[in-house]
Amino acid sequence: MIRVADNNTIFIGKKPTENYVFSTIMLFTNGAGEVSIKARGMAIKRAVDVAEIVRNRMESMMKTKVTYSDIKIATEKVQREDGESNVSSIEIILKK
Amino acid sequence: MIRVADNNTIFIGKKPTENYVFSTIMLFTNGAGEVSIKARGMAIKRAVDVAEIVRNRMESMMKTKVTYSDIKIATEKVQREDGESNVSSIEIILKK
Repeated sequence: MIRVADNNTIFIGKKPTENYVFSTIMLFTNGAGEVSIKARGMAIKRAVDVAEIVRNRMESMMKTKVTYSDIKIATEKVQREDGESNVSSIEIILKK
Repeated sequence: MIRVADNNTIFIGKKPTENYVFSTIMLFTNGAGEVSIKARGMAIKRAVDVAEIVRNRMESMMKTKVTYSDIKIATEKVQREDGESNVSSIEIILKK
């Protein structure tokens, strides 16, 4: 199972990239106008890969133009056993 | 040595994050109004870390507000021994 929030948000974790690509395309296919892809730390690269694969695949296979309506990066505080630490995060908003 | 192009661009590779943070802050200190941070593949997470650390450090230590004037993601073709493959890339433009 991939975490999908009510508001068309996909949280990128440690699953294979294709799983998130599939979930994102499903949201668009089911009528979403925008999908937000969120990731932290090591998952940031995977989030960028997911966004680019979705964009290219929607264009080549479904003749649907998907663009970036916003890309945000930020720093989040994360609680660990040995205290608090900073982790970078990314939010990529794809728009159909 | 860190690769710095003429046009205030930092290319993120495999060096420690701090090296790129230092180079970016140096460009701003030497008068750059904008610095572009570029990375591909596995270096994407490091690029996001560098941008966030620069932004936070410029604000906390130098009382200088740095914002994102643009963040772009794309797909690039890379030649490998076994043929051509796609790699995701990011460009983060920081503005003083």
